[in-house]
Amino acid sequence: MTKKVAVILSGCGVYDGAEIHESVITLLRLDQRGAKVQCFAPNIAQHHVINHTTGEEMPESRNVLVESARIARGEILDVRELAAADFDALIVPGGFGAAKNLSDFAISGANCTVQPDVLAAARAFAAAGKPVGLICIAPALAAKIYGEGVTCTIGNDAGTAAALAEMGAAHVECVVGEIVEDEKRKLVTTPAYMLAQSISEAAGGIYKLVDRVLELTH
Amino acid sequence: MTKKVAVILSGCGVYDGAEIHESVITLLRLDQRGAKVQCFAPNIAQHHVINHTTGEEMPESRNVLVESARIARGEILDVRELAAADFDALIVPGGFGAAKNLSDFAISGANCTVQPDVLAAARAFAAAGKPVGLICIAPALAAKIYGEGVTCTIGNDAGTAAALAEMGAAHVECVVGEIVEDEKRKLVTTPAYMLAQSISEAAGGIYKLVDRVLELTH
Repeated sequence: MTKKVAVILSGCGVYDGAEIHESVITLLRLDQRGAKVQCFAPNIAQHHVINHTTGEEMPESRNVLVESARIARGEILDVRELAAADFDALIVPGGFGAAKNLSDFAISGANCTVQPDVLAAARAFAAAGKPVGLICIAPALAAKIYGEGVTCTIGNDAGTAAALAEMGAAHVECVVGEIVEDEKRKLVTTPAYMLAQSISEAAGGIYKLVDRVLELTH
Repeated sequence: MTKKVAVILSGCGVYDGAEIHESVITLLRLDQRGAKVQCFAPNIAQHHVINHTTGEEMPESRNVLVESARIARGEILDVRELAAADFDALIVPGGFGAAKNLSDFAISGANCTVQPDVLAAARAFAAAGKPVGLICIAPALAAKIYGEGVTCTIGNDAGTAAALAEMGAAHVECVVGEIVEDEKRKLVTTPAYMLAQSISEAAGGIYKLVDRVLELTH
């Protein structure tokens, strides 16, 4: 039976949105494995716009849903329309968008809040016992979604791991091509570009994450 | 010996820039095959900016190099700095950016011109007998790069094929997962999203194109 997977994007570009390689590799693997995918994003302004050649902020405003639509080739919906009942699993790629648009973790660290529509959608998957995959920095949302004691990884960055622990997560170190699974909660995480030195290194871990999330839907 | 491959991007998003899936899949396959990649883009204004949720034009101006940098994670150079002597091969992904920013094929059809820096760079690869891969609509540049008689494919769209023929190209129909090769010129083309109904269909042809381009560097 075809599995239906929701993917939440956070813009379009590693420094102010969804990491593009991680997002595309997620979509590619899901399609290769026969899953039916629907992309979503919050219909909100981006935290800011970064010139990806210089790293400088640009005097512009862009919308997270509109920019995410570039990765989704226009096939995207407002995350308010995401009902966990309609899907078998949820995956959130990384990029600073997860820490600047889906949450404010990049600014507030352990005191962050998660964008309310994203939080409600993700909590609904958790409450239904449906598997969730969080990639790269997206596990910064894990403690807010699942509460204290949730096991996850962002690789091995000590400062980020400490912030996750302060929020109540149990951080486990992980190499780039591997995944960490919270069996009780059906949460799968992988470091991807938190550690990857190349796109194929990122792909290795993401392929494993997608495959495991799909297995957990059975 | 490590092969060095230049990739020319045309923005970031199928409707006004480089097709993101095609671009990332190209970068992934090149990395998986051990090639060293450098991305380039013209430092010019985009033809226009399209809202990818609605298809409508947005009252904004964006720069092709700056937006392409999103796909390249900041590792990108002005195409004026691209010297064919430094590389073993060139690949150009598709998306409307190839027909709106790298050329004006989307507007002028068979009467199109190619952006001068892009044309000079691509002609240098052709003159050096180095392999070139053109994906999706990018083969619209082929006749301008190679002159009359160049063999290529954009899939099976009759109108587009007729425009290529009018420019002097010999168009060959091709299914989505296959490639067409002009053996004399070492030009490899694949339809990708000119025909693909899914990201894995696009990936099939792009993997073959990348693999063949790398073989032709020997």
